[in-house]
Amino acid sequence: MLLPTLNILKIGGNVVESSLWLNPVLDAFAALPGSRLLVHGGGKRASDMSMALDIEPRMVEGRRITDAATLEVVTMVYAGLLNKNLVAQLQRRQINALGLSGADANVIRASKRSKGEIDYGFAGDIQAVDAHFLSSCLQQDICPVCCPITHDGAGQLLNTNADTIASAVAIALAPHYRVRLMYCFEKPGVLADPTDEQSVIGHLSPDLYREYRHQGIITEGMIPKLDNAFAAIQQGVEAVLIGNPESLFQGGATTITA
Amino acid sequence: MLLPTLNILKIGGNVVESSLWLNPVLDAFAALPGSRLLVHGGGKRASDMSMALDIEPRMVEGRRITDAATLEVVTMVYAGLLNKNLVAQLQRRQINALGLSGADANVIRASKRSKGEIDYGFAGDIQAVDAHFLSSCLQQDICPVCCPITHDGAGQLLNTNADTIASAVAIALAPHYRVRLMYCFEKPGVLADPTDEQSVIGHLSPDLYREYRHQGIITEGMIPKLDNAFAAIQQGVEAVLIGNPESLFQGGATTITA
Repeated sequence: MLLPTLNILKIGGNVVESSLWLNPVLDAFAALPGSRLLVHGGGKRASDMSMALDIEPRMVEGRRITDAATLEVVTMVYAGLLNKNLVAQLQRRQINALGLSGADANVIRASKRSKGEIDYGFAGDIQAVDAHFLSSCLQQDICPVCCPITHDGAGQLLNTNADTIASAVAIALAPHYRVRLMYCFEKPGVLADPTDEQSVIGHLSPDLYREYRHQGIITEGMIPKLDNAFAAIQQGVEAVLIGNPESLFQGGATTITA
Repeated sequence: MLLPTLNILKIGGNVVESSLWLNPVLDAFAALPGSRLLVHGGGKRASDMSMALDIEPRMVEGRRITDAATLEVVTMVYAGLLNKNLVAQLQRRQINALGLSGADANVIRASKRSKGEIDYGFAGDIQAVDAHFLSSCLQQDICPVCCPITHDGAGQLLNTNADTIASAVAIALAPHYRVRLMYCFEKPGVLADPTDEQSVIGHLSPDLYREYRHQGIITEGMIPKLDNAFAAIQQGVEAVLIGNPESLFQGGATTITA
């Protein structure tokens, strides 16, 4: 049986927070054939709001230390301000969007990350994604819009990496859809030379990824995103694309397949 | 055919923002028989957040003047912070809550209030409620949790009175459910003497309401809430109860029927 197509687009803070980038991205997303699901970040806006409220943002290796006050800020910014504006912008484009945190309809259950060398505070590691609810939305032609807030089922909200949410949602829906997962950020793709935007690696397979990491061609910053991408591919997602709005929608992004 | 029962509870800012009040209210709400839908306000927290961000809250006759900066604040506080915490607290009680602004699944469409003597800014007057989506949630045993943010369908979020949202949602669902609408605030009911909490009017009919208003027994502050209540009754809602957590769930609240 041929499964229906599902396009999952993850947009990072740089895209969400720039109307110059956001509008064409939402236009292109709305024009995609098949079903759609959007995942968004918004770290820059969260940091700005933290500072406006005199809460110093603290990051370790690109991950936010989420104390109680910071959890309130990210809940406001991700689940409120950014999520609802994205939903309204999609509704304007006749896409019946539905904004979701992981707590809503219990869609993404997580557990608080245990304290290792670093205490990340209220950071959540994903335990389970409810594919049934998301599928029922997609069947009703509703477009879920997922923000990077999850919950533990015991009343606690948690801050969860948006790249990881996109990958986990893609994996959960892979048995029911041919899933194309698109990571949209500011670079045209995975670069062989981080200083040269012309050096996009057109295609990555697991073998090539291992090889490029070994040679030091793929560097630190890209590794968490690529680990999420390969986890998705290994668990049934058909393709992962990594690029900027132009390369993703007009060609030239890095494509990852099994 | 006997319609199923639906309990709609509206909780105001004083209840949402006090864990002393909120926890027993959510316990009682979770224990209600039949289907459930929650509507919440949160004005006090929105005003606190405004002030923390150096945006002076402005109110005229109890209604917030919503300029662009204030709209961002209420979107963060209502749709993000308060809504998602309520959803997580209901999930903890095994209630499969789903937080919604009016933009989500296009549930509540509104139009920007036109400038009269007072320019309320981005204030929305309700145009349409999508009973179909809400019913489909209720049939899946999902409890919608509605915050007082709506949209105009053209990309603009709007700030809408939570009492009015509760009444409009109750009216939209009245053809499909026997709806009991409960307004939970800090007083034990509609008082014949605002200074005496023992003076709860036990029952109000449209005739009695007219009579009490004529005599000046029911005063200014209660009139918008009661107008919403009687609008609901006139449009098929079975009963409206007005009271505090104790009187609503243990008896003694003002009851309004046709």
